[in-house]
Amino acid sequence: MKIAIVGATGLVGREILKVIEESNFNVEEVLLFASKRSKGKKITYQNTELIVKDLEEWELYNFDYALFSAGGETSKKYIPLMNKKGIKVIDNSSAFRMDSNIPLVVPSVNKNIIKNNTLLISNPNCSTIQMVVVLDILNKISKINRVVVSTYQSVSGAGQEGVDELINNTKSRLLNEGKIKTDKFKRNIDLNCIPHIDVFLDNDYTKEEQKMIDETSKIMGRELPLTATCVRVPSITGHSESVNIEFEKIVSLEDIKNKLNDSEDIILLDDPSSLDYPVNSDAKGTNHVFVGRIRKDNSLNNAINLWIVADNIRVGAATNAVRILKHLLELDQN
Amino acid sequence: MKIAIVGATGLVGREILKVIEESNFNVEEVLLFASKRSKGKKITYQNTELIVKDLEEWELYNFDYALFSAGGETSKKYIPLMNKKGIKVIDNSSAFRMDSNIPLVVPSVNKNIIKNNTLLISNPNCSTIQMVVVLDILNKISKINRVVVSTYQSVSGAGQEGVDELINNTKSRLLNEGKIKTDKFKRNIDLNCIPHIDVFLDNDYTKEEQKMIDETSKIMGRELPLTATCVRVPSITGHSESVNIEFEKIVSLEDIKNKLNDSEDIILLDDPSSLDYPVNSDAKGTNHVFVGRIRKDNSLNNAINLWIVADNIRVGAATNAVRILKHLLELDQN
Repeated sequence: MKIAIVGATGLVGREILKVIEESNFNVEEVLLFASKRSKGKKITYQNTELIVKDLEEWELYNFDYALFSAGGETSKKYIPLMNKKGIKVIDNSSAFRMDSNIPLVVPSVNKNIIKNNTLLISNPNCSTIQMVVVLDILNKISKINRVVVSTYQSVSGAGQEGVDELINNTKSRLLNEGKIKTDKFKRNIDLNCIPHIDVFLDNDYTKEEQKMIDETSKIMGRELPLTATCVRVPSITGHSESVNIEFEKIVSLEDIKNKLNDSEDIILLDDPSSLDYPVNSDAKGTNHVFVGRIRKDNSLNNAINLWIVADNIRVGAATNAVRILKHLLELDQN
Repeated sequence: MKIAIVGATGLVGREILKVIEESNFNVEEVLLFASKRSKGKKITYQNTELIVKDLEEWELYNFDYALFSAGGETSKKYIPLMNKKGIKVIDNSSAFRMDSNIPLVVPSVNKNIIKNNTLLISNPNCSTIQMVVVLDILNKISKINRVVVSTYQSVSGAGQEGVDELINNTKSRLLNEGKIKTDKFKRNIDLNCIPHIDVFLDNDYTKEEQKMIDETSKIMGRELPLTATCVRVPSITGHSESVNIEFEKIVSLEDIKNKLNDSEDIILLDDPSSLDYPVNSDAKGTNHVFVGRIRKDNSLNNAINLWIVADNIRVGAATNAVRILKHLLELDQN
């Protein structure tokens, strides 16, 4: 089995390579693709250096699976061509996510919609993935009627340039060196919480918010009433989410905690008496969704509040993509 | 009229002095009090240096009004003594806020509960004030049935030591100098969003969250169903709030925007087409509550989402206290 990573020099592409390296896949070869200007760059994999290839020359190489994380335009241009040659693709861009013919998959929730002949699977948005892993478990305890979510999203969600802009602007403030930049974010992300991720839509929601709304329903397989406010915060890694969940019936917190604890995807950090709750640095570098601050909503029966944290580059992108890949491999081997 | 500021060397105390300086009060004298160890410190007011006095020696001085911002224990010890001497007190601590005999006041909402003989008025919690200014206006359009709020609160809410801890820890990361501290915050506040402000209560809410819940109802004069998640973020000045509001009737966004615009306490920054929404740095140093991102809740009829930002040290503490003082002066002069 040969795997291609498209967008291999980006934050997510590099993390996909790491997650594959950590996995116990029987990988014959990993091919790294990026744009022409990254051609020849070297990235270490299993103690050897892989040379980044120009995506335009992809037809010179043989591979069975491709993981795309190079932006929507690249996905739209190259994925149909690869699919035509029988190459199976997992796409991290939003290009095909809401296409009714394309499965949108978080493996713990809906991997079963992938068929043996599925050629393209979309990887959901980072803020959606970490939430839906939790919602799916809770929805089995009692049907969820409505969700109100507010996010705290790190700058790495905007790629390496987002990380650089935060570090640059913080240095500018503390060391008085360099100018404040507002290239990746419309306001200075240093010391500000910015309620604006991705573009604004006609309904005055941002595209990031609309992704959470639409993708959650698609993954859960039903119209789930959900409203979202997505906010960029001055953190580098990890998205946090304050989530209010209204159920059909009254739920037991004990039951919720037990069910979350039973999931191998989740780490429950929820003990107020020892000040135990998850923050970004707990999640950084891990493949787990962290949950804490679980409590009854005092304003409404049948509702709870909780706090969800995950590494947005891993759980919210790379790890989910590799888990989909793993499932594809299992399907193809059977 | 002579005014005393108790806790004059703290972040809020200093800001109270600034707000008084900016106001057009006919102030005869301002007296600054703090703990013994701050005695003799100098603070500039109207181009002269005021000497900080030891609070223990307050009876040596004459004053008519006192503004307290020195913590609950100091308030409990000294306010009853001052009240006994006829000194009117505005208290920024949480010591008396939920005492049913003590008015809890945001002037634009409920200043009328202050009587001529009222000797003590509590200043609400920072995160409550900026929200309730907005809720009160909306509640007049249609009765509010329920509120779900998630906050993004700056480290200055934890005083100068909170500010110092963020700056210290950020320098430690960027310059590799000094150790990471977790004195004021239980986790490293640099790069982390921490869902924990004030102590945890038996119901697993934090005291900060419970303050928002209880104080909002007390100020609004009725049991208003409200649930809150309060989060400390790596910002220095300004609290932001993502607020979901459910009304009794369907409301018009146009009407909401007009009514908010009509308030002299509020600045509406809400034009997605020009990427206009408020962030911390807009609010810093101002006496206004900033509102933006107003939109219909897609998950529920009769509900909306919006984003509220204010300077927590001014609007959330000093400015509100001085506005109460102004009202007291007007009452006493009539």
